[in-house]
Parts: sequence; structure tokens; C-alpha cells
Amino acid sequence: MSSIAQPTPAPFTGDDYATRMARVTHDAVGAGLDGVLVTPGPDLVWLTGYRPTAITERLTVLVLRPARQPTLVVPMLERPDAEAASGTAAVSFVDWADGTDPYLVAGSRLDPAGRYGISDSTWAMHLLGLQRQLPLSSYVSLTNGMPMLRAVKDARELARLAAAGAAADAVYEQIVQSPFAGRRELDVAAELAELLRRYGHEQVDFTVVGSGPNGADPHHEAGDRTIENGDTVVLDFGGLMFGYGSDTSRTISVGEPPPLVREVHSIVRQAQQAAVEAVRPGIACQQIDRVARSVISDAGYGQQFVHRTGHGIGVTTHEPPYIVEGEEQVLVPGMCFSIEPGIYLPGRFGIRIEDIVTVTDTGCRRLNNTGRDLRAVG
Amino acid sequence: MSSIAQPTPAPFTGDDYATRMARVTHDAVGAGLDGVLVTPGPDLVWLTGYRPTAITERLTVLVLRPARQPTLVVPMLERPDAEAASGTAAVSFVDWADGTDPYLVAGSRLDPAGRYGISDSTWAMHLLGLQRQLPLSSYVSLTNGMPMLRAVKDARELARLAAAGAAADAVYEQIVQSPFAGRRELDVAAELAELLRRYGHEQVDFTVVGSGPNGADPHHEAGDRTIENGDTVVLDFGGLMFGYGSDTSRTISVGEPPPLVREVHSIVRQAQQAAVEAVRPGIACQQIDRVARSVISDAGYGQQFVHRTGHGIGVTTHEPPYIVEGEEQVLVPGMCFSIEPGIYLPGRFGIRIEDIVTVTDTGCRRLNNTGRDLRAVG
Repeated sequence: MSSIAQPTPAPFTGDDYATRMARVTHDAVGAGLDGVLVTPGPDLVWLTGYRPTAITERLTVLVLRPARQPTLVVPMLERPDAEAASGTAAVSFVDWADGTDPYLVAGSRLDPAGRYGISDSTWAMHLLGLQRQLPLSSYVSLTNGMPMLRAVKDARELARLAAAGAAADAVYEQIVQSPFAGRRELDVAAELAELLRRYGHEQVDFTVVGSGPNGADPHHEAGDRTIENGDTVVLDFGGLMFGYGSDTSRTISVGEPPPLVREVHSIVRQAQQAAVEAVRPGIACQQIDRVARSVISDAGYGQQFVHRTGHGIGVTTHEPPYIVEGEEQVLVPGMCFSIEPGIYLPGRFGIRIEDIVTVTDTGCRRLNNTGRDLRAVG
Repeated sequence: MSSIAQPTPAPFTGDDYATRMARVTHDAVGAGLDGVLVTPGPDLVWLTGYRPTAITERLTVLVLRPARQPTLVVPMLERPDAEAASGTAAVSFVDWADGTDPYLVAGSRLDPAGRYGISDSTWAMHLLGLQRQLPLSSYVSLTNGMPMLRAVKDARELARLAAAGAAADAVYEQIVQSPFAGRRELDVAAELAELLRRYGHEQVDFTVVGSGPNGADPHHEAGDRTIENGDTVVLDFGGLMFGYGSDTSRTISVGEPPPLVREVHSIVRQAQQAAVEAVRPGIACQQIDRVARSVISDAGYGQQFVHRTGHGIGVTTHEPPYIVEGEEQVLVPGMCFSIEPGIYLPGRFGIRIEDIVTVTDTGCRRLNNTGRDLRAVG
């Protein structure tokens, strides 16, 4: 276990956050926006380090506009917490009290006819409040209006993502030492969660254990089913470490795999490998999806690959770039995303293999590096 | 502990959920709406029993329209989970695949110029997608457009809220047996979480332990501070039990309380009592807030009561009715909400006393019933 002990990285500083806010404000102009509105969630964490204890009906919004100081509109109650966040020193605060209108307060900081990017996960109630307050204003979600907002990671972000990936790899190497046959999926999932924490994750987001037919439902988490000898088991787990995400999948066989499982696993592995090899700057996201999909389709399983090939990862585990048909965004060095093709045979089993990769100047580097052979476990 | 063992209530049935959907669809017309759009979160849980494993960028939305079967638009991946939910038997499903446009799919189920209520917490990205797809459509958040949606609880919901309240009371009676002096806030918070689970909660939502000056920040959760003899400690905790919320606060004194703490606690207690006594059908929510506030203002602490008096509670812990100035909604039997006045002296201490109450035909009934005297603990 000593090899996976990871030094805690130096925290991002107020200057780091101020630089991010300035860059986003600058880029907003290039995106045809009069500013950016950021509510609690991954965008706000990334821009200010501020994560309120709960996301509620009380409006909190960071207003970024050119030539203005960043302003955080915040419920009076939550102001002390927000002021204590690591990245809000350069932010001016405006609070509002229960019983007053927060949209009046926020709206007065906006151009009444402006066009703004707004966090994807902002509550509809808040967007409607702003639209009502400023009927001539318009909005676009940040994923659609500024997909590059957080997509390209700098060296310190990459180091965190690599650390999270290495920890997830250590979890996998550990879990395959445990017996699977005779345990419930939920028990294996609990062990995955415990191992993620032991290897340094501060947050566990998902622990998929899809055994036998359950593996054929890509969104199955973990249930009461007892794993049996002869089962195929999809393991897909991740969370946050040093504030950045991990997400890896391997599919194992409990006992010797039957020929069909071997065949399907081999196809998924080839698809995943081909997609990884296709990654380089200038290639469109959808092209990576097509590469993975064509391997699987050529093998006759196209209808059984029922999801996109991947998603970006950073301070949250689903973010741009999305590796999906229709996404014409081209890859840029520093982008990080999953490559996770799968084949799902309803009622029988599923196979998925997933690594996080980061785009380099000439190709990509995998942040997950455990073996991709079909592994037989006890 | 035997007195707090609570029998698991019979689950809500498909018929129960169908009845709720029918009632909401009917009420939408009365609210001037052409239908209701419900995304994952408390509204969807209440209407269908369906809670996806994660709320993501993939659109899931329940469409309720008069004279139409309820329709759930769902990512293809998540359809099996949604179909397995306890309340979706009467729902028709429409799925969409990665790489296709979910707003086209959802929009085709809507009147292009219709007006819809939409869940408060629907992602802005999804609302903007619908607005783009149907430029003549309009929307109002359900809290604003249909505040009565979930506000009045039926007998089975009340039984669950009462069970959650009784469990929270048992937690309080237990925690005050533990020593406080010398423990960190975080340790007491961890014990509160453990006790909530032990007494039947399936989910812990918050465990506030605000000792000494930390108690003066109403949104402080729990930190590294070691509790000392002489401290006042605000305890505010809750979560979900049988799917319904608990939320109670008491403020205790570690050792004998100083005179100022006694005085302030007595004022808060009088304010809380007066507000509880003011509750009855036909009274406006804001009137309850005014009653509590006037007691505190008359005692000279009006500026130190920095939040509203309360919030509704049900399948989530903040929902209508809000007990706040400006809220003219009148109370109706079956409504459940908190009454939680407080006084906060920055740098010194805070006092808050909170019970959940339910409106009866003639007044109200408290769902929290632990002592409200200022209790001295070890």
C-alpha cells in the first residue's frame, strides 16, 4: 500500500481563483456573452473554492462581468461561510435577507438586456426569477455557451486527476484479491467505497457492481443479488480525491469465463484500445465515439453499445467534453475524459472497460493503468 | 430504546402515486397551467417513487397534462430503473439515446405555446433546452405556480413525519447523556448522525453543532472547535425516515449557563411558544413569522433574528409553506413546517429552538416534544 500513498497537493490560492475568474470573464466576451452567472456546484467550486453546505431554494450566484469586480450574491445567513472560502478574497459580497427579493438584488448587477452564460445545474426557479426580473435578458447554459470553461486542465489539475486515477487503480488491484462468489453486490460495493476512502478519496460518488444479468443494465448500481461462480461482473467506481474525480471500469469473471464472455470482452477491449489510440489534438469528440462504435458494430454488437463513449471529468465526474455523436468540439491538450465502450446483452451479462485519458501534444496518456485482460477471480 | 422502535409503514402503492398524479394534473388547470413538468428530486419522488441514482446532465422529465397519460421522458440507459420504481406502472415511457436531442423528444409532448409548472430544482440547462425548442412556451416554478403541490400531508404522510420527529427526539434525549466538554463539534456531529441512523433514519441531511461563537452563525455546521465548559451549543439535525423529513433544534449549556444565555434563551423560547400558539387554519404564513419576530424585537434582539421563522417539510426538508414575511399563503390543516426562531450574538453565542408542527383543525400539533428548558449538560 505504500506505493499509493499520495502527498496532499498545495491548495489552490486566492490568486489561482482570481486568475480563473479573470480568464472566464475574458472568454465570455469571446463567446458573445455579457457575463457569466455561476451558482453552487462544480463551476463555483472551480472558480472560488466555495461549496455551500447545501444547495437550496436560497439564491447564491457569482456574477462575472467584464471590467467589474466579481460579485457574489449570497443569502445573509451563508455569507460567513462564503467569505471564509479560499477563493473569495477578490470577490465583493452582496447579501440578501429572508423575506426580500434576491432576484431584485442579482438583477441590479446585470445589464437588463444582457446575454449571460449560466451554470448548467442552476435551479430553474432561479433562472425563472432572473428572467422575470429582467424580461429582455437572455441565457445560455455554460456547457452550451462556454464548453471550454473547465475542459482544459492545467498541470496542477492534471496531477490531482492522476492521483485520483492511481488511487482508483489501487482499489481495483485490491478488490480483485477478495472473493466474489457468494457475496452480495452490495457487499462488494461497500468494500469498493471503503477502499476508495482508504486510498485517499474524500468523496465516493458511485460503486457499480453489476453481476450476471445486472451487468447488462449500464446504470445498475448494486443490489441484493448474490454473485455466483460463472458470473461476469462489471465494476465501475469513482469519487473525488483532492477535489478531482476518478472513474474507472473493469469487467471480471468469477471463475473461468465462458467463450461468449471472452469473445465480447475482447471486442470491447479492442474498441477501447482503438478509441484511445485515436485521441490526439484536433480530432473531434464525435470521431472518438465513431472509432469505438465502429469496432463494436463491425463485430455485430452495435445495437448493444447503448451509450456514448465517454464524458469529461474534473471537479465533477460528468462535464464537457462529451465523447458522443454530434459533438464537433475538437480535442485540445489538457482535456480529460473517459473512454468507456460497452456491450450489454439483456438478461445475460454486460462488459465495459473504462479509463480516464488526458490529451497530450501528440496523443493521450491514460490515467488508469490496471490490466485490461479479462481477469478471472475467486 | 424499545419505545422508539417504529414499525415500517406500508409503502405507497401504484394507485397512491396515480392518485397524486391525477390530483396534480387537475390542480394545474386551476392554477392556469397547461401541465406540469417534473424532474428528478422531491417532486418526482412524491409523484412516482422514482429516485435516479444520480441527477445528471441527461434529461429525465415527467410530463403531466390534462386528458393524457402521464409520460416519463427518460435516458434509454435509465429506463429499466425508472420502470422498476413503485409508482410508474401507470406512466408511459419515452426514452432517448445519447447523441439524440432530448428537448425535441420532450417538446413533442408539449403544447408549443403552453404554460407549464416546472420543478424548482430542474437544471437551467434543461429549462433553456425546452425554451429553445418551444420559443412560445412559458414556465413557472412549482413553488411559485403551485405552492400547494405537496404542502398538505395526508394521514399516512403525517404518520411518517411523526415517526421521523419521534426518532429525532430520541436522538436528542440520547445525545444529552454524552459529555460535551472536551469533544470536538465534529465528534458530536458524527454521534448525531450515527444516532439518527440507529433510530431509523435512512438518510442524514444535516448535523449542526454550533458551540460558543460558532453558534452565532446559523449556518455553521460543525468544525474542529473543541467544546468547552461554559459554552452554549446549538444542535440542529435531521434527515429522512421512511422517506419523510425530520428537523429539530435545541440549544444546550455545557455547565451552568451565564445570565445572558439564560435571558436570551428565555426570549427565544417565548417567541417559539407564541408562534406555535398562533398556528391555526386561515392564518397567513407571514403572520406566524411576525408573531415570533415581535417577541424577539420587543425584547431588543430583532436585529439578531436574522432568518425566517420556518419552512415546510415533507419528502424534503425545505419546501412550501415558507414561514416568512411576504408569504400570504394561509395555513391549511395537514401542512407541516418548522418553527425555529433564533437569536445570534456574533462572536459570542447563538440560541435556536425548533419544532416541526402540523396544522390541525383548531391549531397545531408539535411533532417534536423534547423539553424546551435550557438544559445544562456535562
